[in-house]
Amino acid sequence: VEKISVIGAGSWGTTLSILLARKKRNVEIYSVERKHNLSLQRDRENKLFLKGIKFPPSLKVNLSLKEALENRIIVIAIPVKFLRKIVKRIKRVGIQGKEKIFVSVAKGIETSSLLTPSAIIKEELGEVKVGVLSGPTIAKEVVKGIPTTCVIASQDITLAKSLQEIFTTDRFRVYVHDDVLGVELGGALKNIIAIACGIADGLGLGTNTKAALITRGLAEIIRLGKKMGADSLTFNGISGLGDLTTTCFSPYSRNRFIGEEIGRGKKLKDILQKMKMVAEGVETVKSAFSLSKKFDVEMPITHQVYYVLYKNKSPQRAVDDLMNRPLKSEWEG
Amino acid sequence: VEKISVIGAGSWGTTLSILLARKKRNVEIYSVERKHNLSLQRDRENKLFLKGIKFPPSLKVNLSLKEALENRIIVIAIPVKFLRKIVKRIKRVGIQGKEKIFVSVAKGIETSSLLTPSAIIKEELGEVKVGVLSGPTIAKEVVKGIPTTCVIASQDITLAKSLQEIFTTDRFRVYVHDDVLGVELGGALKNIIAIACGIADGLGLGTNTKAALITRGLAEIIRLGKKMGADSLTFNGISGLGDLTTTCFSPYSRNRFIGEEIGRGKKLKDILQKMKMVAEGVETVKSAFSLSKKFDVEMPITHQVYYVLYKNKSPQRAVDDLMNRPLKSEWEG
Repeated sequence: VEKISVIGAGSWGTTLSILLARKKRNVEIYSVERKHNLSLQRDRENKLFLKGIKFPPSLKVNLSLKEALENRIIVIAIPVKFLRKIVKRIKRVGIQGKEKIFVSVAKGIETSSLLTPSAIIKEELGEVKVGVLSGPTIAKEVVKGIPTTCVIASQDITLAKSLQEIFTTDRFRVYVHDDVLGVELGGALKNIIAIACGIADGLGLGTNTKAALITRGLAEIIRLGKKMGADSLTFNGISGLGDLTTTCFSPYSRNRFIGEEIGRGKKLKDILQKMKMVAEGVETVKSAFSLSKKFDVEMPITHQVYYVLYKNKSPQRAVDDLMNRPLKSEWEG
Repeated sequence: VEKISVIGAGSWGTTLSILLARKKRNVEIYSVERKHNLSLQRDRENKLFLKGIKFPPSLKVNLSLKEALENRIIVIAIPVKFLRKIVKRIKRVGIQGKEKIFVSVAKGIETSSLLTPSAIIKEELGEVKVGVLSGPTIAKEVVKGIPTTCVIASQDITLAKSLQEIFTTDRFRVYVHDDVLGVELGGALKNIIAIACGIADGLGLGTNTKAALITRGLAEIIRLGKKMGADSLTFNGISGLGDLTTTCFSPYSRNRFIGEEIGRGKKLKDILQKMKMVAEGVETVKSAFSLSKKFDVEMPITHQVYYVLYKNKSPQRAVDDLMNRPLKSEWEG
């Protein structure tokens, strides 16, 4: 059986490591921060990001990136903001052979290059095999064994199927997908809509408002995705709609939470200062704003979130502006 | 300006009457139960279904169905189970002229005929004009002025546009639609998925599970809808996905609530005995079960909800069976 390394020990990387270890897979976790890595080894628990969940005995903490990279399957669980830096480090340390399989699990779009995680990995490492794992997978729920679905995407369907087998458990149902771009865009862009829903929560608005944001939000995600070459059906699936719904309603979503704090009148800078976890949407909204201009796609919710986060627009006015656009048929934007 | 009557004084009929009256439209409400109608007139409030919201002075309570039917626009806000009976009564009392416009706002499918509300109205009254109002419109939120979106559907786009104008406010955004069947099916079938999500809530499962139910639920709604001749895009819109999302997450949804009680181990009969409001999904699941057989469409969530409600299947086993179906690609059911 092939050995797996998980690079990155945030809540999701840790959860996946635990999931695989519980399945008796041979799995090693490596945190890119040495101090954190040492504490994982000492505590046999991720006290920073997944407090209270003890590591199964079979989960090994690896203190050497070089050693971790010897395993055949490498899960990359690094926020997009730091992804390129870490992939460059991986390149420097060296990977052996084309037979490596990378599994990308981050959800975002790099603000400078406007690339998705799998594209960043390929750009840095050359033509390596990359599968993308995405979907509505709140870490705290997965680790508790709550029934969850997700997708593994790769143009190489054999690769996708072998990864499906590796990750599937009776509580973690993995579907195979071939639209890598669609899966990655869905996972990244939903965070923006989640911030918008959080703003609605913070303003004391209700589920009717959030339903409108989710529906119209999915429509603008599909508009952009289609123009970029993704399959619009993908966004209707687990990695699109499914993840969107979860993130917009979960009390655990960091992106929704940031929106909620903003809706309550707090400033982005102050909110981020207090958070130890990364909320990908805060960066992704910049990328999506650029993409909507680059591909000439109307994305009213994305634009309003961008204005609220970065142009000091009042959340209440953003919601009013969204609701009072001229009446059109449902699909004209 | 044309006068409007609302037939049916549940929470939604009452909310629409109040919304129109606040807009200074000439509107009358009529409850099909005389005792309830008298109490509306006496209290200037619907104490049974919308406690605490006083009627605007311009909202008239009409005690005569005959008089109410003299108005040009007739909103029919009657649960599907009782709809045919009331439409027959309307026919007996008599409507004058082909120029009447009916607005159907119920969300369900008649178990005996497998027809949607607008089809029932047309079957009983002949070729009258009917528009369908549907979408994520939790009554308690609409009446508070929380931003809400919905659709008005009619094959007659001029009709739809004139109804759009009548119902739109700056907090109640109405889109025009032409896929009447798709809009009605979306509104009806989402209640079944909401019951499933409620069951997940009652079992203490999380948003990951609900996201899976919503995504896979939308997929089975689309499968049936397409076979019945609806446009699959409709289900992605406000009246499909939007309403589905709201209903599955709203604490106010009666359908979700029934599921939750069942997930906690209560019996359907006992739950229904205590509820004064109608939860359409309890009947609709029977119709959808029949439709899935009639049109030979795989609808695993609908089937599991049907078995739990009517065949004494344990909710936990239903969830297990849904999660442990053989792994397929996302779209094979």
